[in-house]
Amino acid sequence: MRKGCQPVAWHGDHVVIIDQTRLPGEEVYLKLDDYREVAAAIQELKIRGAPAIGIAGAYAVALGARRIKTAEPGRFRRELQDIIDAIAATRPTARNLFFALERMKKAAMPGHSPADIKQALVDEAVRIHEEEADATHHLSLFGAGLIGDGWTVLTHCNTGPLATSGFGTALGVIIAARDQGKLVKVLATETRPLLQGARLTTWECRQASIPVTLITDSMAGYFMRKREVNAVITGADRIAANGDTANKIGTYTLAVLARENRILFYIAAPTSTIDGSVKTGDAIPIEERNPREVTCIQGVPIAPEGVEAANPAFDVTPHRYITAIITEKGIIGKPFREGIKKQLEGDAR
Amino acid sequence: MRKGCQPVAWHGDHVVIIDQTRLPGEEVYLKLDDYREVAAAIQELKIRGAPAIGIAGAYAVALGARRIKTAEPGRFRRELQDIIDAIAATRPTARNLFFALERMKKAAMPGHSPADIKQALVDEAVRIHEEEADATHHLSLFGAGLIGDGWTVLTHCNTGPLATSGFGTALGVIIAARDQGKLVKVLATETRPLLQGARLTTWECRQASIPVTLITDSMAGYFMRKREVNAVITGADRIAANGDTANKIGTYTLAVLARENRILFYIAAPTSTIDGSVKTGDAIPIEERNPREVTCIQGVPIAPEGVEAANPAFDVTPHRYITAIITEKGIIGKPFREGIKKQLEGDAR
Repeated sequence: MRKGCQPVAWHGDHVVIIDQTRLPGEEVYLKLDDYREVAAAIQELKIRGAPAIGIAGAYAVALGARRIKTAEPGRFRRELQDIIDAIAATRPTARNLFFALERMKKAAMPGHSPADIKQALVDEAVRIHEEEADATHHLSLFGAGLIGDGWTVLTHCNTGPLATSGFGTALGVIIAARDQGKLVKVLATETRPLLQGARLTTWECRQASIPVTLITDSMAGYFMRKREVNAVITGADRIAANGDTANKIGTYTLAVLARENRILFYIAAPTSTIDGSVKTGDAIPIEERNPREVTCIQGVPIAPEGVEAANPAFDVTPHRYITAIITEKGIIGKPFREGIKKQLEGDAR
Repeated sequence: MRKGCQPVAWHGDHVVIIDQTRLPGEEVYLKLDDYREVAAAIQELKIRGAPAIGIAGAYAVALGARRIKTAEPGRFRRELQDIIDAIAATRPTARNLFFALERMKKAAMPGHSPADIKQALVDEAVRIHEEEADATHHLSLFGAGLIGDGWTVLTHCNTGPLATSGFGTALGVIIAARDQGKLVKVLATETRPLLQGARLTTWECRQASIPVTLITDSMAGYFMRKREVNAVITGADRIAANGDTANKIGTYTLAVLARENRILFYIAAPTSTIDGSVKTGDAIPIEERNPREVTCIQGVPIAPEGVEAANPAFDVTPHRYITAIITEKGIIGKPFREGIKKQLEGDAR
């Protein structure tokens, strides 16, 4: 990982996170030793990006378990479940959080002492972090092979090291392509309402010395129609069994524009983002956030006081718009249902 | 016109404009008696909206002519041409500005004295203002017939009285539908970079007592796919002879999304927006504005210092995405080339 991009780090009895809401203006690191602080940081997007949310959620469980005082196994498990439930309630859409919480729950093996379970939870959280970081590195290498020399790649939201506590998903693919010696330019959508593209993707591109041009979300179609975009790559918050993909609001629009202009449209995500239990995108819950994120920008009001606003944080891109899905196990082409099933079955073996 | 929405008013020897860059926070009126002040106000978007730019440009010529000191007809005409050229250089895309300047040039009849020409220019500017205001009222009435009771209409940028110094174009259609007793809701895109939707459309909807919900530009696709939009209506900055339409950046995207979701997509504009000399949208010049409008919002930086940004102010929607074009002469259906030709020939008679 490149310097200055570590969104969450484990320090034995606490985590240190970089407050992503303050970037790029300020690099503020927060030391959190209470799971409720971590849960609040997830809810407030101080930690964000589906893979990073999963990792932070796992550490939050480990931190929460440390504070449970009872030595009585039944009560310990009930208190642990309450902690897991509280962390699960922070953000409903990103699959990676639930993937991590399910693994943490399994790691709290029945029949063991609370002390042993506490240690097992720390070990499992560190393992999830390592595996997820590895996964984003591998998927980036697979994805880099799809990127041509001299290409301009359009990406949405932020999907680099900050979003993953690893190499990155969509931006990881771009960085890996550049590492392979390809000249790649990035067109970064600002990603309203919370401007992760303007604030974080431009910052990470600069850190990786990749040329980047910032555009508003409304300009993506203009550049696609002018044939100035070779491929669109985004991350994912949850992928259904048929390939339908929930991702940051605006992704569906980019996918429609890409198909209309015959431009490649890739999703890059670790398999921990795939939810095999969800048949299609229609069943993915979409988080509705505070309308003030729309009516104010960086605290400055942009609309008359009291105006009603909507704020769905994600949308679903039907699989028919997606060229391929890039995971750490390889590239899934159409039909997605079979490819996804194979990759998930690989997990189960 | 409803109170508080007059973007430009003639007062005999000066114009008073409302500074639209300060709305909705403050209602600041500016008294301008120098054509260079009016040109600067157009360039800085204190006056904006294609029809209002045309009207302000006409008054600017009248103000400029008043200041010409020479009584020598040849020199007077040369100085007048310099003034017209300076006003024409403010914004390259909106057809209405050139429409108004061509009319003003014709009004400066050869063979007349400078004094007579000065008066003729004032008269012509007032006439353009009145005719444009009438045109937006008539087109709004034609368009209202296309809107169903209980519909939710999505619109982009700002196209009400502020943009037209009249009734409005796209928003005029919505207001007229409501005046006909139809229940209409508006979904207003914020319209980055300069937030005319968030700042001005929500404000005008409130003044007209029309329920409005503000969304980011990236959310339009989400609501269209959910079937929560019955029609999309936007204004236009320049319409080519084949119906291709330049309008605020992001309009092309809305048109693609509308077609993908089988939603009606209308353009509403007076015939002064049609440029019969431009065969297709490819020949329409697209204004590229200062990248700081993208990297800063209301003066607050949203990206790392020095990040490169693009800022095309308009895009072109190919005519195949447009359901119909609404003008003051009626509704133009496909094929647009014939309908447009007929409406322009009506002018020439």
